[in-house]
Amino acid sequence: MFQQITILGPGLLGASLAMAVKERGLATRVVTWSRRPESRAKCLGRNWCDAVLETPGEAVADSDLVVICTPVQTIVPLLAQIRPALAENALVTDVGSTKSLICREARNTLEGHSATFLGSHPMAGSEQAGMEHARADLFEKAACILTPLDDTSAQAIAKLSAFWESLGMILSSVSPEKHDEIVAHISHLPHLLASTLSGYLATQDDTWRNLAGGGLRDTTRIASGDPGLWKQILEQNRDEVLRAIDGFEQELHQFKAALLNDDSLAVITQLERGKAYRDRLRKS
Amino acid sequence: MFQQITILGPGLLGASLAMAVKERGLATRVVTWSRRPESRAKCLGRNWCDAVLETPGEAVADSDLVVICTPVQTIVPLLAQIRPALAENALVTDVGSTKSLICREARNTLEGHSATFLGSHPMAGSEQAGMEHARADLFEKAACILTPLDDTSAQAIAKLSAFWESLGMILSSVSPEKHDEIVAHISHLPHLLASTLSGYLATQDDTWRNLAGGGLRDTTRIASGDPGLWKQILEQNRDEVLRAIDGFEQELHQFKAALLNDDSLAVITQLERGKAYRDRLRKS
Repeated sequence: MFQQITILGPGLLGASLAMAVKERGLATRVVTWSRRPESRAKCLGRNWCDAVLETPGEAVADSDLVVICTPVQTIVPLLAQIRPALAENALVTDVGSTKSLICREARNTLEGHSATFLGSHPMAGSEQAGMEHARADLFEKAACILTPLDDTSAQAIAKLSAFWESLGMILSSVSPEKHDEIVAHISHLPHLLASTLSGYLATQDDTWRNLAGGGLRDTTRIASGDPGLWKQILEQNRDEVLRAIDGFEQELHQFKAALLNDDSLAVITQLERGKAYRDRLRKS
Repeated sequence: MFQQITILGPGLLGASLAMAVKERGLATRVVTWSRRPESRAKCLGRNWCDAVLETPGEAVADSDLVVICTPVQTIVPLLAQIRPALAENALVTDVGSTKSLICREARNTLEGHSATFLGSHPMAGSEQAGMEHARADLFEKAACILTPLDDTSAQAIAKLSAFWESLGMILSSVSPEKHDEIVAHISHLPHLLASTLSGYLATQDDTWRNLAGGGLRDTTRIASGDPGLWKQILEQNRDEVLRAIDGFEQELHQFKAALLNDDSLAVITQLERGKAYRDRLRKS
């Protein structure tokens, strides 16, 4: 499908992607680069990696697909850095959790170059970070959102869609702005709530944690995610996240009022609405 | 350990308990009763059940341990119903998620009888309900909270502790009031938040659900719990739950202010506190 794919930033997502590409034979060569020398050393000799290069420019030089898998704030700076080295008509994408800012700035960065940037957001991952947790099946049956701009070529969209679909992903395509509104609700708000609940419980008696059951563990699992990565995500999507928090607060206020007023019908209606939504979420 | 154990209400918890008791040989006989004839019929012929009786009185008549596994609002009414049939010195417990009201009323109900009520709250279960989902290992390595009153005999506490420990549970003992404060925070608040998040997302674009990743699925899993059961739990523990919501709202307000004020240090501090708490929760 591609001659050479470069993965910049082989962490959980990047290394999983390299494994999956190799396993499914989606590229002749997989090349990686990582900012940290220790990470580059760790990539050497892995069977999912044909070459590890010292600079991002060298790593992208002969690739027809470049996937930037670094934290969201470094995606555009890295794109600017590799621009001079990008091959003619190269396709560049990312796996960042925010899109408006990145896609707008990426277009400006590549202005006048034949390479195309098209944003991707594979809804895969976990609270774990690092290539140690990478696995080839990470993307299977998960959703992937492409965020083309008005002038993104149909060819680039088709090619990148086919790539993610080859990894077993279920593709959708929306504008970067719509993407940010959606993930503020279905990903960033849940993360922030899990983190807030954990942070609140941290202010209570420390021994209570030993009594917790599976419910609390599941509800707060994603709070274990990397604070540095999530700070960047929440800040890049600040306005949409704030709107989602406001909406949630209103819903919580309603639930609280129902309890406060001993309004049994309202309490059960709230619980039933929540259950109906949750029961219809996709299983895996 | 016991000659005969009666399980009233063989749903997920009750049937799992019967299975575990049989598997570990903790009683010579296990007797059940269920309010619904269909459930009684389903119990017949199960290898974890020696007899199914038509009335709760008949079911408890010769038992030295009775475990009431019905929804919280029916525990005390059922105790009043079985009182005349309870054996001399019988030990009665429950598996309800609230304790103050139940333990106080249970003491009054058994006044003048040689039987003892001692509340239990095994922190096991799931969003699934019904004996179809029962399993003998449900209680292993989970926490179990006993809620003795000041005048509960040391013998009853020792006997019931040994029983739950024989099922692999990790025992704690606190007053019913303290129990309700604790579970308002570590169980009822998480449930209410999962339900509120699901209910809020139900008001948004219906197609967004297809894009959700594992984070949303985990965060909202318990929202699938039975609304009827949870309405009773939230209402019985109303005051403590309202206090826990207030505390959570303040924490959420802080997080929101940090984002609103572009206070990066405060944002990362919030995320780090949440992670630190979550990383220290017991694994299973």
